[in-house]
Amino acid sequence: MTQEVQADIGLIGLAVMGQNLVLNMHDHGYKVAVYNRTTARVDEFLAGPAAGTGIIGTHSLEELSVVLQRPRKVMLMVKAGAVVDSFIEQLLPHLEPGDVIIDGGNSLYTDSNRRTRDLAAKGILFVGTGISGGEEGARRGPSIMPGGNPAAWPLVKDIFQNIAARVGGEPCCDWVGEEGAGHFVKMAHNGIEYGDMQLICEAYDFLRRGLGLPAGEIADVFSAWNRGVLESYLMEISSEILGYQDSDGAPLVDRILDAAGQKGTGKWTGINALEMGVPLSLITEAVFARFLSAMKEERERAAAVLRGPEAVFAGEIQQYVQALQDALYAAKIVSYAQGYLLMRAAAREHGWHLNYGGIARMWRGGCIIRSVFLDNIAQAFDADPDLDNLLLADFFADALAQAQAGWRRVVARAAELGLPVPALSSALSFYDGYRSAVLSANLLQAQRDYFGAHTYERVDRPRGEFFHTDWTGRGGKVASSTYNA
Amino acid sequence: MTQEVQADIGLIGLAVMGQNLVLNMHDHGYKVAVYNRTTARVDEFLAGPAAGTGIIGTHSLEELSVVLQRPRKVMLMVKAGAVVDSFIEQLLPHLEPGDVIIDGGNSLYTDSNRRTRDLAAKGILFVGTGISGGEEGARRGPSIMPGGNPAAWPLVKDIFQNIAARVGGEPCCDWVGEEGAGHFVKMAHNGIEYGDMQLICEAYDFLRRGLGLPAGEIADVFSAWNRGVLESYLMEISSEILGYQDSDGAPLVDRILDAAGQKGTGKWTGINALEMGVPLSLITEAVFARFLSAMKEERERAAAVLRGPEAVFAGEIQQYVQALQDALYAAKIVSYAQGYLLMRAAAREHGWHLNYGGIARMWRGGCIIRSVFLDNIAQAFDADPDLDNLLLADFFADALAQAQAGWRRVVARAAELGLPVPALSSALSFYDGYRSAVLSANLLQAQRDYFGAHTYERVDRPRGEFFHTDWTGRGGKVASSTYNA
Repeated sequence: MTQEVQADIGLIGLAVMGQNLVLNMHDHGYKVAVYNRTTARVDEFLAGPAAGTGIIGTHSLEELSVVLQRPRKVMLMVKAGAVVDSFIEQLLPHLEPGDVIIDGGNSLYTDSNRRTRDLAAKGILFVGTGISGGEEGARRGPSIMPGGNPAAWPLVKDIFQNIAARVGGEPCCDWVGEEGAGHFVKMAHNGIEYGDMQLICEAYDFLRRGLGLPAGEIADVFSAWNRGVLESYLMEISSEILGYQDSDGAPLVDRILDAAGQKGTGKWTGINALEMGVPLSLITEAVFARFLSAMKEERERAAAVLRGPEAVFAGEIQQYVQALQDALYAAKIVSYAQGYLLMRAAAREHGWHLNYGGIARMWRGGCIIRSVFLDNIAQAFDADPDLDNLLLADFFADALAQAQAGWRRVVARAAELGLPVPALSSALSFYDGYRSAVLSANLLQAQRDYFGAHTYERVDRPRGEFFHTDWTGRGGKVASSTYNA
Repeated sequence: MTQEVQADIGLIGLAVMGQNLVLNMHDHGYKVAVYNRTTARVDEFLAGPAAGTGIIGTHSLEELSVVLQRPRKVMLMVKAGAVVDSFIEQLLPHLEPGDVIIDGGNSLYTDSNRRTRDLAAKGILFVGTGISGGEEGARRGPSIMPGGNPAAWPLVKDIFQNIAARVGGEPCCDWVGEEGAGHFVKMAHNGIEYGDMQLICEAYDFLRRGLGLPAGEIADVFSAWNRGVLESYLMEISSEILGYQDSDGAPLVDRILDAAGQKGTGKWTGINALEMGVPLSLITEAVFARFLSAMKEERERAAAVLRGPEAVFAGEIQQYVQALQDALYAAKIVSYAQGYLLMRAAAREHGWHLNYGGIARMWRGGCIIRSVFLDNIAQAFDADPDLDNLLLADFFADALAQAQAGWRRVVARAAELGLPVPALSSALSFYDGYRSAVLSANLLQAQRDYFGAHTYERVDRPRGEFFHTDWTGRGGKVASSTYNA
């Protein structure tokens, strides 16, 4: 006889995120069935964290399919890429039209585009959902960003919104958009997370190496910042980390190796920006900063060879602490503005309908970039849903006007002191470029026309008229068409 | 009766680059047959630039194949991508084993990897070659970077080396490496070109908007720089451009619209760097700067809303001209060092054998980044073929030590004056990060461990040992394996 328990949802993949999501669903009254490719982990989970919960362990996909209510909802929490496709392939014989497959991993949004279409052709409703919040978020309420087949949304809405974080009574989960929109927005979120983390690290480095403050004092600075405009989860945990003592009472952070890991989602954001023509400079610098940090041995050799400046810090520490706070805030505004430019470009390219204010609201709780700042973003889009760029909203334009003096002082001083601030300075160059009605690309266009006959437009002629100058008097008259520069 | 003229090589694609390469081959005594999909262009070419040369026009691929000496050499100068595959497909019925297909377009190196293998299976020898120099270079001697099937090299070596630029008697062409290595190195070259151009534009902008110099005076500054360490084709043409007068005597450059075009090769370099984990920050900033410049209307709106600093330049102009020269030189060294990091990573990934000094020598003439500077790079690799990083060569380490004070002053002053210097400042942050034995990624690793249980290494323990801290006392013991941050 087949087992006749009817589970609300099945979850495949019992690594930390999967386990915690299952326990979270259970807390909210859902009956969950679980499966894991290494089935011993199912038993460990049931005997361990899930003991006494009534969570149903299964040891095959067939068994899993039998215990699920119909239409079945099966959620994959497995490694992105081929593993997802493999599980979908194995699941299909056990599913019926109208069943729902949910991919909660960090999949490439283009894979989710494909899976939505391929599964729709088989009558299966696909949901690709971003989930953020790490192990804590998964357990207590993550930010959930579902996209895919809109017909699936009514079937998963309650469970997703119930297990999500809540801010002001509202769930940090709403339908994001068609096809891979959920995973795209999660990717943008992760890129922004890279940027936020890098910005905090640059401030930390300036406080530590520039101003000479010990970890404990930096913890206090961050703690103070966390009571102002920079209030955020990442600022909070950074302060806690800096205050955390190793077994001998020394700051643990000073014992941690400075070689950053990364698993791809940040670099996907940068690649996507390059492909779509979006100037996402801050996040990309944050990704490059991780790459550079990973070159630990080479940096150690370089430190013995390459000279720094003579300058040492001389000034009022408290003044620079304030300037740093301004710099962090201003650069953060630029980073989110760039992230929104990326989402807008994707929506245009794929014909998605993204609710920009809603996305900020989904990120207000549960996820790693949660902050008070996101309320300001949501409000800016509420006030003007067609806002071209966050920087142009009154609130942020004013904030930047206030913060820019400190920001400029920090970037200038870092250059003089020999401190790397790739994200802070990249954001400043973006700000100064963006507010320049006239940039220096006129020379660049002239160069391209000179060596490649690429033609240029003129300021005194309508857009779309192209001119070529025979700069040397030696070039031919033939127009460029295949040479790419 | 078939025509019995025996041409040395056939060329398909008579846009500006193709035409000029054909004329260049003809100048060096080669008999060239040409074909173009729109065959009217064949006739126009023969009646126009090729009149009286004996260049053979053909009006079908069959006709082209008949007039070629065997083994046949057919060179494609067509749009990269599907058009190349389409021509290869159409050519195959007219070719025999041992014939050579050369793709001289700006193809993705991964396409050249694939074509080398696929054609080898059919007995056809594929060459994917980078060609740089624009229309002038193609006509008078380009830099040629061939890779692909090594068996093809003896068959094309003479013609390639004869039509290439020469510096000090040596051709700017040599075998680069296996499969797509030629196109990869061309891609790196194009990325470097983007960086060089952006750096010059930033210096121009600082001189124009920062110091208030008119175009003619900037032309003089560039002309002076072109007699020193910055001597290069791009510096030379920038000076000429700035001195070029419109019909009414005003500087033409001031009439050119500041919205940069780009056709993809720069962004491929950035994408590649992100995929391979190489911190190629300067070139990527240069690509983003082009994207930003293209947002012309949005920048005009932003200029009316976003405020800049109060600061105006006050200082010794000549002092800043010197500092800018130092900044440009130092950032250029960083840019090339990053480009070489990228090539090294590709060689490792694909098992190619790249001759790093040889690559610098290929770029010394004919191509757009040609400069005296490349001799210094070649010498650095001659002195130490296993050089990890250009920055660590004595010559460049000393140059950076000399130049850094001016570089830092420029970046600091630009921040204070509100001038965008994304490439100059990105390079400085890279330099200061690279020479830091200890960076701030210890905090970043702690953050990742805090929210995602990603673990960290310790400075007081061997590499490869990973630690997890339960920072809050609430987290589980399970190790992270699927959550990606």
